[in-house]
Amino acid sequence: MNFISKLSSIRKKNQSNLIVGLDTDPLKIPDVFHSSENPALEFNKAVIDSTKDICAGYKLNVAFYENLEEKGVQALRETLRYIPEDLLTICDAKRGDLDNSAENYASVYFDKLGFDSITISPYMGTDSVIPFIKRKDKHVFVLALTSNRSSSDFELLKSGDKYLYQHVTEKFLQTGDGKNIGFVFGANYVSEISDFTSSHPEVSLLIPGIGAQGNDLDELMNNLNSDNFLINSSRDIIYAAGKDDDPDLIKEKIRTAALRVNENINGKRNRK
Amino acid sequence: MNFISKLSSIRKKNQSNLIVGLDTDPLKIPDVFHSSENPALEFNKAVIDSTKDICAGYKLNVAFYENLEEKGVQALRETLRYIPEDLLTICDAKRGDLDNSAENYASVYFDKLGFDSITISPYMGTDSVIPFIKRKDKHVFVLALTSNRSSSDFELLKSGDKYLYQHVTEKFLQTGDGKNIGFVFGANYVSEISDFTSSHPEVSLLIPGIGAQGNDLDELMNNLNSDNFLINSSRDIIYAAGKDDDPDLIKEKIRTAALRVNENINGKRNRK
Repeated sequence: MNFISKLSSIRKKNQSNLIVGLDTDPLKIPDVFHSSENPALEFNKAVIDSTKDICAGYKLNVAFYENLEEKGVQALRETLRYIPEDLLTICDAKRGDLDNSAENYASVYFDKLGFDSITISPYMGTDSVIPFIKRKDKHVFVLALTSNRSSSDFELLKSGDKYLYQHVTEKFLQTGDGKNIGFVFGANYVSEISDFTSSHPEVSLLIPGIGAQGNDLDELMNNLNSDNFLINSSRDIIYAAGKDDDPDLIKEKIRTAALRVNENINGKRNRK
Repeated sequence: MNFISKLSSIRKKNQSNLIVGLDTDPLKIPDVFHSSENPALEFNKAVIDSTKDICAGYKLNVAFYENLEEKGVQALRETLRYIPEDLLTICDAKRGDLDNSAENYASVYFDKLGFDSITISPYMGTDSVIPFIKRKDKHVFVLALTSNRSSSDFELLKSGDKYLYQHVTEKFLQTGDGKNIGFVFGANYVSEISDFTSSHPEVSLLIPGIGAQGNDLDELMNNLNSDNFLINSSRDIIYAAGKDDDPDLIKEKIRTAALRVNENINGKRNRK
């Protein structure tokens, strides 16, 4: 099954376009997990237990796991095994490399760890996605217009009559058959998301930047002309519990936080 | 000691601006290493033994190591420990992320593994380098004009009177105090390297793309108006031996290949 079909299935099954960001930092997780052999992994399992029937999938930012060295590799692999098969998994790696290097990244993240999608930085051009998109059941999200302050440094430079991010989306949509390529847009760029989804309602979007990053979900949802979108929320959900809460209370607070975000997304739309 | 001072010292000591690329692929290394517990690591040690007095340092493309999972983390860490203190170490990670994510990358590659520099993808803007350059003894190489075919997709888009890669170099040179930021230019872009080094002779350059990638070293050297350059060569050196050679012959062939590349670089210049 390709990624878009999987997105469509889980969206209907769980009534959700929410991606829970497992940006797991051992310094921020509740104390109870620190007695286990791999705290990041055990924390992830608790988050998954609490949310797997009310979200569309999980995004793991690999920066957090690389910083844990061997334990991080184990946490990535075992977390991926723990996520139910019908949920989406996004490797937030922002990789952008070529040839053998890109093939190595595709090999580990897609073939060995089993992610079904990855985020890609477009700077070096379309060569960067070739090894990833030739795996037809896998998917890439190319950075287009990111939610950070310095996104305007280059992404909003104008070349001809288009911004750089528009050259990026145009070029990548012409790469391969275009079917397993989507884009990352920050939640703060509402009018740009409105324009893009109006002209490309079928293209998948990954949207970070709500919640802790303070952007307006109502305004975003009123301008999103697509069903193939995924909204990422991380800190507001995974760190909803207190440091000294017990396991049951931790799971309850995480679930309550995820339900609230999901209901906020769903409340603004007529779900199809 | 900052990176530029270290570069200057090792350049004089080893009469070399050569960086040996440890793009170590277990499928390509000689058979003799496969009996060891960590073949990539043992191979790297042999390359370092053969070249540490005739090169300026080593670049490790982390894609190759991530694909080895736990063994790759071990190979990275132990290889870094094995490289003599006065040689340069470059983490070729092409990372481009923000805030906590970038801080996690800086933590593992600079603080834990001990690299003294890292390659950075500039797409998301100058936010991407903040956690790296605030470590004043560390260095970043930002991708400017890369050696691959699709580098022209975006890097050579013109905005105003400058190409994107020129906006990148200009913007990053204004970030922080600019002293621990250099750039990656592919060896095929000789006239662009000539222009850049004429106006910025003090800024460090990392130049891949000679040798196996087929660009003309003579022409490059005639147009390089700087001493703070590092030329990377990988496959031509590290895979110089045959699959079934014995350890002494492997080391001899690797050393001979590295000496030849280094002499080719030095022969074209009056060293200072």
